[in-house]
Amino acid sequence: MSNTFGRILRFTSFGESHGKAVGGILDGMPAGIDIDFDAIRRNLHRRRPGQSPLTTSRNEPDEVRFLSGIFEGKTLGTPIAFLIENRNTRSQDYEHLKATYRPSHADFTYEQKYGIRDWRGGGRASARETAARIVAGTLAAHIIPQVEIKAYVHAVGPLHLNRSWEELPLDLIDLNPVRTPDPQMAKAFEHLILETKKQGDTLGGEIICVVKNPPAGLGEPLFDKLQARLASAMFSIPAVKGFEYGSGFAGTKLTGSRHNDLFNPDGSTKTNRSGGIQGGISNGMPVYFKTAFKPVSTIMQNQPGYDRQGNPVTIQGKGRHDPCVCPRAVPVVEAMTALVLADMVLLNRNATLK
Amino acid sequence: MSNTFGRILRFTSFGESHGKAVGGILDGMPAGIDIDFDAIRRNLHRRRPGQSPLTTSRNEPDEVRFLSGIFEGKTLGTPIAFLIENRNTRSQDYEHLKATYRPSHADFTYEQKYGIRDWRGGGRASARETAARIVAGTLAAHIIPQVEIKAYVHAVGPLHLNRSWEELPLDLIDLNPVRTPDPQMAKAFEHLILETKKQGDTLGGEIICVVKNPPAGLGEPLFDKLQARLASAMFSIPAVKGFEYGSGFAGTKLTGSRHNDLFNPDGSTKTNRSGGIQGGISNGMPVYFKTAFKPVSTIMQNQPGYDRQGNPVTIQGKGRHDPCVCPRAVPVVEAMTALVLADMVLLNRNATLK
Amino acid sequence: MSNTFGRILRFTSFGESHGKAVGGILDGMPAGIDIDFDAIRRNLHRRRPGQSPLTTSRNEPDEVRFLSGIFEGKTLGTPIAFLIENRNTRSQDYEHLKATYRPSHADFTYEQKYGIRDWRGGGRASARETAARIVAGTLAAHIIPQVEIKAYVHAVGPLHLNRSWEELPLDLIDLNPVRTPDPQMAKAFEHLILETKKQGDTLGGEIICVVKNPPAGLGEPLFDKLQARLASAMFSIPAVKGFEYGSGFAGTKLTGSRHNDLFNPDGSTKTNRSGGIQGGISNGMPVYFKTAFKPVSTIMQNQPGYDRQGNPVTIQGKGRHDPCVCPRAVPVVEAMTALVLADMVLLNRNATLK
Amino acid sequence: MSNTFGRILRFTSFGESHGKAVGGILDGMPAGIDIDFDAIRRNLHRRRPGQSPLTTSRNEPDEVRFLSGIFEGKTLGTPIAFLIENRNTRSQDYEHLKATYRPSHADFTYEQKYGIRDWRGGGRASARETAARIVAGTLAAHIIPQVEIKAYVHAVGPLHLNRSWEELPLDLIDLNPVRTPDPQMAKAFEHLILETKKQGDTLGGEIICVVKNPPAGLGEPLFDKLQARLASAMFSIPAVKGFEYGSGFAGTKLTGSRHNDLFNPDGSTKTNRSGGIQGGISNGMPVYFKTAFKPVSTIMQNQPGYDRQGNPVTIQGKGRHDPCVCPRAVPVVEAMTALVLADMVLLNRNATLK
Repeated sequence: MSNTFGRILRFTSFGESHGKAVGGILDGMPAGIDIDFDAIRRNLHRRRPGQSPLTTSRNEPDEVRFLSGIFEGKTLGTPIAFLIENRNTRSQDYEHLKATYRPSHADFTYEQKYGIRDWRGGGRASARETAARIVAGTLAAHIIPQVEIKAYVHAVGPLHLNRSWEELPLDLIDLNPVRTPDPQMAKAFEHLILETKKQGDTLGGEIICVVKNPPAGLGEPLFDKLQARLASAMFSIPAVKGFEYGSGFAGTKLTGSRHNDLFNPDGSTKTNRSGGIQGGISNGMPVYFKTAFKPVSTIMQNQPGYDRQGNPVTIQGKGRHDPCVCPRAVPVVEAMTALVLADMVLLNRNATLK
Repeated sequence: MSNTFGRILRFTSFGESHGKAVGGILDGMPAGIDIDFDAIRRNLHRRRPGQSPLTTSRNEPDEVRFLSGIFEGKTLGTPIAFLIENRNTRSQDYEHLKATYRPSHADFTYEQKYGIRDWRGGGRASARETAARIVAGTLAAHIIPQVEIKAYVHAVGPLHLNRSWEELPLDLIDLNPVRTPDPQMAKAFEHLILETKKQGDTLGGEIICVVKNPPAGLGEPLFDKLQARLASAMFSIPAVKGFEYGSGFAGTKLTGSRHNDLFNPDGSTKTNRSGGIQGGISNGMPVYFKTAFKPVSTIMQNQPGYDRQGNPVTIQGKGRHDPCVCPRAVPVVEAMTALVLADMVLLNRNATLK
Repeated sequence: MSNTFGRILRFTSFGESHGKAVGGILDGMPAGIDIDFDAIRRNLHRRRPGQSPLTTSRNEPDEVRFLSGIFEGKTLGTPIAFLIENRNTRSQDYEHLKATYRPSHADFTYEQKYGIRDWRGGGRASARETAARIVAGTLAAHIIPQVEIKAYVHAVGPLHLNRSWEELPLDLIDLNPVRTPDPQMAKAFEHLILETKKQGDTLGGEIICVVKNPPAGLGEPLFDKLQARLASAMFSIPAVKGFEYGSGFAGTKLTGSRHNDLFNPDGSTKTNRSGGIQGGISNGMPVYFKTAFKPVSTIMQNQPGYDRQGNPVTIQGKGRHDPCVCPRAVPVVEAMTALVLADMVLLNRNATLK
Repeated sequence: MSNTFGRILRFTSFGESHGKAVGGILDGMPAGIDIDFDAIRRNLHRRRPGQSPLTTSRNEPDEVRFLSGIFEGKTLGTPIAFLIENRNTRSQDYEHLKATYRPSHADFTYEQKYGIRDWRGGGRASARETAARIVAGTLAAHIIPQVEIKAYVHAVGPLHLNRSWEELPLDLIDLNPVRTPDPQMAKAFEHLILETKKQGDTLGGEIICVVKNPPAGLGEPLFDKLQARLASAMFSIPAVKGFEYGSGFAGTKLTGSRHNDLFNPDGSTKTNRSGGIQGGISNGMPVYFKTAFKPVSTIMQNQPGYDRQGNPVTIQGKGRHDPCVCPRAVPVVEAMTALVLADMVLLNRNATLK
């Protein structure tokens, strides 16, 4: 298991979905930083289950308890440990899964790898652990107060926004439960999610994340290029299947003469197909990327399967789950982005001795 | 700079494009493995510049010299150091770039970050260093002889294959200079590349990589999930802008009931939208993923730009470059994949004490 | 801050002396291991403050609460998080230290480094955090059940045992509060400690640790040689000033012909001046080493000092402290040794592919 | 194998004694630093075999060849690769060791661990690789030009200096082949070494290292305390059996009231039994430590032994070796110290955001 993320700013996560708690330790936070506890609470609330009809009905207060590393409201430079208790667990909902594996879930692979699994609610593979990432990421954001990180839902199932992030009012993201800056499309997304939920089915989607005002110089080639760190962060989030930055997959269809970003005299560029990153290092332009989330694999429909012995069984659609993870994944994408950027900022301070 | 890749099997790379040599150290190779030097030579040749009219005319023999870690043809368990000399350098071709920055290149960002750069041929940001990855990756593949890793060009510019990897004869990949398993499309790709080259322009493309016969259990959640390690590996390759595995971006458009991979009694799955990975761990089905490469930013056309002081200059189209990196990137994708898989195999041996 | 120890088996520690709790996360434990909770409790008790008149009067129950990674008594292969609450804190005892620095303490250096410190009871620099190491080390010992790790007090102040570890009944260690296997010397040590305590003064001492039945092959040259990992572990313990293994400092006085350990036909050696390690790798003979602990710097006497502004002040002898840390450090030495050995055992499984 | 040392400034070493070359990659050097190539040459010369009658007669020019990371005399911020060829190898001297193990050497343990070894001249376990450390350490010292690191031989076999480092003229160290700042004792050491050599025997000794003018704040508790990093560095050097800093083992005999270092108004201390480190962090006072080296295990006398099958054999005293490693180990101790300090300086820049 590799449950630590980061080079200088290192977040170690723990917790199973129906265990005592999820949480973690953030090590490497510079000392003397005033903690904005409201920001942490706010982001936890944005990820919280049960926040709207679009989400699972598991209702968790998700209050974080800090155990160390903070003194009189400031960081000490020592590890910050914290936990969020699991309260609203209904483990009996999962009893029927003890000896069988849900399709496209981690049940089978965990058991293959470890020979044992906590079958209650997805165990370690549950997205429940992302609550801890929210805390760590919001702490990390304290290191880069001048940087603005905004993620939003760009697509739900077959529907997607028709405007690019530059054309959208990103301030509106949190005004609807889907977390999308296009109020009209928000309604369409919402409707689609609720209809799909009624059918016991689920949806995937896409999240775009925009980093405004990043410093130039972030990223550590060859193997910790900024895009590699961001991709690594995104693919650690449950259900993520794709990542592209800047012009991404579509950019492959252009010729070099049309794709290149020409410079302005001040070093900024006229276009930004590079997505703010060249040679693995930020150039000071906005960084933006898109992440694909697969449809949730737990559906409220019966599915044929097999038990451990290979006997056919019916996997019942039970438990409490989101019909589409995207609305709640928005703050998780932001948190992981903050962890990456803050870490890269700290590393970059040693690029020269100045 | 973070020039080491891997957890147990760690590859540290060095070298600038027009410096003395590129190379690296592979640490963590288990002892007692017979080295297949022919395989290394073969893969270096597949990546070698000057191998066909589709590539740069820089002609390098790319012979590797091993300095340590191998004794009587076998690995010692000690670090394997090696170097590949840079011979066919024409640094004078780059004199005009000393004080200016090529569009969409790493010139500007390296100088922002480090306050200094080796302006000869791209320096550290050049894809020249991927020669070293070929050596390391081919060595890594010795750890997983039963696993077959095959990459191929799926798209060049706007053209792409119409068949999925399951439907293609992957044995044919190396029979054409584009490295694609569809002989007819190979011709079309080749024609497009040569035409574009004539216009002094460049192309992007897509590479699909398939891993057949992977063991189940590879991947170390939460933060070294198999897909996260693969993405991290791919985004360390120059020009990569996107990565998706399994159903990828297209999978977001399906509902869960259509997307889920139902099991067979033996634990294999009827479909493989998961791309062989569930919960960050391989399930034994083939792993496959697609990587997007942007069009090469060095074009043989003049481009407007600015020098360090902000004065307008014309960036001349000079130097020797590939019109499309994909044909030569195929073995690089395979090498990085081998490094990831071998490392995950070694890590996985400690998932239990058995 | 670097609060993570280990390569494959990684322990991340947290907690300040007068904060909410100390604890940690142990990541990398293989799955399927039955936890011996009694062993953990027993070792915590051996380290517990207030266990005898020889120790500080701070009385902590030191009960550990596991939050994750264990399911039905077995390890899941996921991170094991745990905490031990701080209950018997009397922070007001330290109010007078807010603006001043105790001699030979970490007060001054923490403030120099971080610009802030938790002045209550030593904060992060307190040996309170070693309670967490006991838990992690006892868990680690589960990986190497066949290995016996025994530490004991060899010297207290100017007094020391006259017999080597081979000549001593190591089973008697825990039968006296000083933790030394020589009952007569135990009395002398005890008497010296109590007399010194009466005078408000403190003592240093030495701990010897013996590892019986270690497997051959542990240690990862060049930079993770077994002795380097052990030394690194010991010097992370508060108050440690010296470390030697095998013949140590005394061995420097012998010639090579007298120092060399001649072989027996079975690969064991007739003598063991090597301390069971040759070239950084265990040879299967017992590993043994000695660790020096300085006298506790908190004394119950007034000392002259200066406040933050350089004004002379008197540092009062207050708070609750051990007159000699050695008796309670014995299980800490064992725990850190177990962490090292278990980690090296896991790493060593990849020395070859067998 | 773990052949990488350092956190931010990471040195990866390679090479066997009788292979093609030894060398390494130093990654993480800040960009823009002017390299003092003379200093590197000078330190290599101080470690060079064959430099005086006190050393092995293997005569190596030990010229370093840089392959990357330096441009126009300055660091680029990219990895610095370098190699030193092995030229004066006489592998035939070791043919008789193929199937047997020298007492107190790494022959047996390497073969136990890896199932294979390079029997020529000690292979990877040879101190030959420390030549690479000299290069890396001298480069590291460029990061901390204001810090003075001086090591010297304090004892040879049973003889030792009677004065502490504060009382000795450290500028005289390199004026005699033993590298000790006491000219009279230098003669005695030299005489003892030559006499012992005549008898085909070898000696151990002690090296003291003093770091003058270190910045306060270096060291990363809990697990990368400055003393832990230094100890880890020292125990990676072949033949090291002990390490103590400040008052060390002798300090355990004092009471706290006599051991404590009282402060001066400016934060310096009246005494320095702490060895410049409190709580794992440097306090700005000189850091000093002592390292014990065992007598060289290769002696020019016959020794009884056994071959791989357990048959008795006579191990002949052949090959070329130092009668006492200390004179040549002095620059190695300095180099490893520089690697630790430079790394800690870089890490410490992130203790706060200032």
